[in-house]
Amino acid sequence: MTDSGFPQRLAALNAEYARCIDDDRMEAWPEFFFERCLYKITTAENHRNGFEAGIIYADSKAMLKDRVSALREANVYERQRYRHIVGGPAIIAEERHVVRTESPFLVTRIMRDGRMDLFATGKYIDAVGEDADGALRFVERIVVCDSARFDTLVALPL
Amino acid sequence: MTDSGFPQRLAALNAEYARCIDDDRMEAWPEFFFERCLYKITTAENHRNGFEAGIIYADSKAMLKDRVSALREANVYERQRYRHIVGGPAIIAEERHVVRTESPFLVTRIMRDGRMDLFATGKYIDAVGEDADGALRFVERIVVCDSARFDTLVALPL
Amino acid sequence: MTDSGFPQRLAALNAEYARCIDDDRMEAWPEFFFERCLYKITTAENHRNGFEAGIIYADSKAMLKDRVSALREANVYERQRYRHIVGGPAIIAEERHVVRTESPFLVTRIMRDGRMDLFATGKYIDAVGEDADGALRFVERIVVCDSARFDTLVALPL
Repeated sequence: MTDSGFPQRLAALNAEYARCIDDDRMEAWPEFFFERCLYKITTAENHRNGFEAGIIYADSKAMLKDRVSALREANVYERQRYRHIVGGPAIIAEERHVVRTESPFLVTRIMRDGRMDLFATGKYIDAVGEDADGALRFVERIVVCDSARFDTLVALPL
Repeated sequence: MTDSGFPQRLAALNAEYARCIDDDRMEAWPEFFFERCLYKITTAENHRNGFEAGIIYADSKAMLKDRVSALREANVYERQRYRHIVGGPAIIAEERHVVRTESPFLVTRIMRDGRMDLFATGKYIDAVGEDADGALRFVERIVVCDSARFDTLVALPL
Repeated sequence: MTDSGFPQRLAALNAEYARCIDDDRMEAWPEFFFERCLYKITTAENHRNGFEAGIIYADSKAMLKDRVSALREANVYERQRYRHIVGGPAIIAEERHVVRTESPFLVTRIMRDGRMDLFATGKYIDAVGEDADGALRFVERIVVCDSARFDTLVALPL
């Protein structure tokens, strides 16, 4: 899978993923994942200590869709905007049908009144594979946030 | 135009553009555009509502050059430095002579006394084409800022 | 050296470098450099004026290793985390065995209590070459920080 075009495809996947969230097209977000998948948001400290408890945990695309529905009902997401900047990916390992990779990210939050702040930084620890059509999707995306300080009411996807 | 080397050329264009502004080589900045072009800075809210009024509006390279002259005369730009970080581009559509693409950006401002702040985040909505020499230039660059809060005195290029 | 795959290799080098520091694998950091090299951290103002005095200066891999040992002894690095976001590289020039390139960077700092701030922004001015195994390493990495405000006690690698 990791031929010469692979780093570009990976960068494009990261770009589309960020754009989906930042454009508030949340209903399309679960489509970046396989039906059976692992998505969680955790902190660097929890991740290092091997603690399972994350801020968000989902092991299927159905759970991701539920998460989006909950966010829409809570109507919490619309109050602010987010902007992801994703750094270049490092390719860690290639397994049989999966490539393991890591990318740093930074997310800013823009409040309705225009105030901006650094919302989160961290790294994505990913396992990506190709679906039946040859498109890259996430088998796993572990979002490891550098800071444990979180506005937990706003548990939106990162 | 979007062969396998295109994403790299696009990333290089974004890198050169950011470097030109951050190095304060503003006189070279209009050269990233075609003679007839569209450059504007607007806000997410205005863009969504289809309002024309932007913070900066120019539809020719000559207008971009005027903008630079005005900035130099106002001597306002020299008081601070900027640093652009541009995320990976998403390729949206390919038309006959133009590729439509979007890239997220983040700009920090560094004041003379060393203070740094988040100045702007947003996305570039671009249409790029090849000039007579095969170099990529902007047919359109719409700078959509996430926040409407602006130090409008400092209407420098983004 | 700058064939069609070169920009990707350069982006990968930048990604691995940032990941090494942010994962606190500092002992591996000198390996990104040749035995005889130049690494320094300076400010935009000092760099423009041609002043030699930098915040960090090292002209061999041995000096970089010493720097890491000093940091570990001071035990200062462990108190906070850092996150680098490196923008796309611009290729400036190709010389006989070296490619000159520049990349913008932004580093956030995450304190133990969870507070985050913009720590530094600037650009890497690099000269990269291939080692005997064909891997890219730094002949030079000049870290030019936009701001002169520094927590000089924390003179960690950037």
